[in-house]
Amino acid sequence: MSMSDEERDEYPDGMVRLRNPNIELMDQDILYHLALGSGSHDLPVMFGDVKFVCMGGIPKRMEQFAFYIMDEIGHKLPSGTTLVDISQYSYRYSMYKVGPVLSISHGMGIPSIGILLHEVIKLMYHSKVRDPVFFRIGTCGGIGLEPGTVVISDEAVDGLLRPVLEQAHLGKLVQKPAKLDKKLARELLSLSSPDEPYDTVLGKTFCTDDFYEGQARIDGAFCSFSETDKMEFLNKLSKMGVSNIEMESLSFAALTHQAGIKSAVVCNTIVDRLKSDQVLASKEILEEWQLRPQKIVARYIKRYLSNKGRLSLENHGHGGGFYVKSPRRMKLVQQESETYD
Amino acid sequence: MSMSDEERDEYPDGMVRLRNPNIELMDQDILYHLALGSGSHDLPVMFGDVKFVCMGGIPKRMEQFAFYIMDEIGHKLPSGTTLVDISQYSYRYSMYKVGPVLSISHGMGIPSIGILLHEVIKLMYHSKVRDPVFFRIGTCGGIGLEPGTVVISDEAVDGLLRPVLEQAHLGKLVQKPAKLDKKLARELLSLSSPDEPYDTVLGKTFCTDDFYEGQARIDGAFCSFSETDKMEFLNKLSKMGVSNIEMESLSFAALTHQAGIKSAVVCNTIVDRLKSDQVLASKEILEEWQLRPQKIVARYIKRYLSNKGRLSLENHGHGGGFYVKSPRRMKLVQQESETYD
Repeated sequence: MSMSDEERDEYPDGMVRLRNPNIELMDQDILYHLALGSGSHDLPVMFGDVKFVCMGGIPKRMEQFAFYIMDEIGHKLPSGTTLVDISQYSYRYSMYKVGPVLSISHGMGIPSIGILLHEVIKLMYHSKVRDPVFFRIGTCGGIGLEPGTVVISDEAVDGLLRPVLEQAHLGKLVQKPAKLDKKLARELLSLSSPDEPYDTVLGKTFCTDDFYEGQARIDGAFCSFSETDKMEFLNKLSKMGVSNIEMESLSFAALTHQAGIKSAVVCNTIVDRLKSDQVLASKEILEEWQLRPQKIVARYIKRYLSNKGRLSLENHGHGGGFYVKSPRRMKLVQQESETYD
Repeated sequence: MSMSDEERDEYPDGMVRLRNPNIELMDQDILYHLALGSGSHDLPVMFGDVKFVCMGGIPKRMEQFAFYIMDEIGHKLPSGTTLVDISQYSYRYSMYKVGPVLSISHGMGIPSIGILLHEVIKLMYHSKVRDPVFFRIGTCGGIGLEPGTVVISDEAVDGLLRPVLEQAHLGKLVQKPAKLDKKLARELLSLSSPDEPYDTVLGKTFCTDDFYEGQARIDGAFCSFSETDKMEFLNKLSKMGVSNIEMESLSFAALTHQAGIKSAVVCNTIVDRLKSDQVLASKEILEEWQLRPQKIVARYIKRYLSNKGRLSLENHGHGGGFYVKSPRRMKLVQQESETYD
């Protein structure tokens, strides 16, 4: 059984609709893993202005991204406030909202990001959000690329190299096409700069259910193949146009495509799998590399908001709802305050 | 291709060995997702005394379990110390050590727990741990059981109802038998008490890659079947002896079995799927239910330590390395201290 394979539908009025008639008939919809509900929270008021949903694996990284994008788009918090993790009581995902941008952690692997996508797509529907754009910003293994390279996925393939998310529903296999928006991928590529000390490329993404044997690593607790088999397979991937390997893009592509939501996957490589299985870069280097996908996505968001006249570039510098006139003087005041005895 | 299906090997000297000759040849092994390494950390000193590895989905729950088991086994921290998240710099999993017990969060889904298991099994090997016992304590959906019931898994089956973990290695499907230790499951069952206001049962566990369509829910962002199809499938599961549904047991059973490690899965149901898709119990009720699997596992651990003469039941009550002689007097001292001005 295969889901319909047509191009992504655009909604006539831009509103996200659900491919599930049951939701409309429910008295309330509890988004269990987000600690939100349509009966308990006024979702249109809380989320109606969302335009961009950015996801990445790690809660801490997505908190950092929220503060980074706040700075980049010049978003101001009311005096005396700071960002709060909206889903903190779920203890599963972290979610931050910075004006039109949601920054959410998705954990590791297809099942973890899949639960999140079901609930965030329902959140968009309940909140009456129009034409949202979803980004996954993450890390990945690279194939024949200098570590630190940024890969924008133009397609995702599964462990058997098929561009589908295969799931068992009611004991039968179902395939969902894992399509990403090629135009959005090219737009993002055009926002990379030749001055940057790293490459940004378009490529096919190999998405797996396992980090060790599933990604042809020989350094897991088990290994069912030889180094020679491994290199043969990785070279085959390379010849097929696979640029990188990660563990979420297939579900991200398939579920956003099925929901008619424009989406892109932008990852930085942390290892060249043609050279090594283990990640050897230092924490500091890895942290610098992780900013690279964020920069491209921030440029896209800024360009969109700028075109809409919604970008506020004055008064950069947030800090928990403090409105800073002079960063230098504020620092002096803070230092004085600290040393006052 | 199918992995060998023999009974779990016991190691003659109890030491955990790896089914991967490559690890021995490596200069150092970086356990990337745990923020530990065989070259950087003295793993036998740090972890050599571990006997029990307890895993559950959520970092906060596993931190609570660490403090709970500390109390239960009467483990004392040196004065002026408290537990620290050993893997805090991985930002992925949380890991706490309480004497012979590790308490680790595994996130959601097979890929997330799979990465962890590869690295924790390698951690056991590098640390020269003898005969460890692994537990997964978690939450699940139930089939025809009162919510709050405790299910001890005697087998795990996949989305196609097969007792195997199927993975793609080098573009080909590989099956690993998902076997749990039946004797351990029965021992745990015998530790439940007839006085408890809930049932504890043995049953088959249906393990899925998706929480919504994959678990026959009709309330996701998408739904490819009708309520009638759903009920037919859930009734079929029930007739097959399936007691509960979750998302990690298959990988947990398959990888511990392959490593020759004794293991059990103990979960509390949070919903009866024959009656509802949505989880309707309050936070307080859910939190009480989550303690039930922990209690059984704690009894097993206490009985083992008691048989070895290693259980210290005096001086209950931890608190960050404070040795409490009289809880009442300590409370008075703390209160006085707080109100002193």
